[in-house]
Amino acid sequence: MFPLPLPMRRALDAARVAAAAGEVPVGAVVMRGGDTVAVAANAPRALHDPTAHAEMLAIRAAAAALGDDRLADCDLYVTLEPCAMCAGAIALARIARVYWGAPDPKGGAVEHGPRLFAQPTCHHRPELFGGIGEAEAAALLRDFFAARR
Amino acid sequence: MFPLPLPMRRALDAARVAAAAGEVPVGAVVMRGGDTVAVAANAPRALHDPTAHAEMLAIRAAAAALGDDRLADCDLYVTLEPCAMCAGAIALARIARVYWGAPDPKGGAVEHGPRLFAQPTCHHRPELFGGIGEAEAAALLRDFFAARR
Repeated sequence: MFPLPLPMRRALDAARVAAAAGEVPVGAVVMRGGDTVAVAANAPRALHDPTAHAEMLAIRAAAAALGDDRLADCDLYVTLEPCAMCAGAIALARIARVYWGAPDPKGGAVEHGPRLFAQPTCHHRPELFGGIGEAEAAALLRDFFAARR
Repeated sequence: MFPLPLPMRRALDAARVAAAAGEVPVGAVVMRGGDTVAVAANAPRALHDPTAHAEMLAIRAAAAALGDDRLADCDLYVTLEPCAMCAGAIALARIARVYWGAPDPKGGAVEHGPRLFAQPTCHHRPELFGGIGEAEAAALLRDFFAARR
């Protein structure tokens, strides 16, 4: 087994922060080359913001930090397959590469459901790498939902 | 011709504010019953935020104002057919009804492209009303892009 890339370890740490706050455990990191531009934990409940998925918060923080609404030379690491909202934001931000952990057959929009980046009208298709840290990301989600039942 | 609903008039006014600021002219309003909860103009450039579409800003402002990440009893008025990101956010926010103006064959995700609310994995489908104020909304967009050529 290959060691996990460091950004995905940090995204998993952010997912743990989300879980501890009672939010669905998902974390995200935006990198530019070797530099960490933004780290975020899923927080829709705490922020009273339905758009506050980890990817959205990381993309917004990265764009603010770089002073640009395009993140063309940036990569996104996220512990769960992005939903339609987040995949749309990834395309709008022109993110170069997306690495994700666990698949999301119900809510995912990359390899499931609308498969947004494969749609003919999709104006930007990042390089896609799924299953990076999948076991750890999926365990966090499973434990979180098991504890709520 | 029927008179336009007042919220769509206000969304068109917000779109004009966006145009005056050099942003693609799109405006959005969130209503709860007869109350205006949020009004927003498209602002990704000014805010250095690729997610700052009018719908997203209006949904976020409405959720903050109501202190809830669900807007189940709210309606959204927007001058342009929502994109995938915004349609995803509308579903996550559980918006009850969406009224939009101009169709967007290139970027729209409601009646074009992925048609997100018709996807089997879509977990919330609002009532949908297109073409409300279409002529005025489309004229704003046409004039904006014509002036930039």
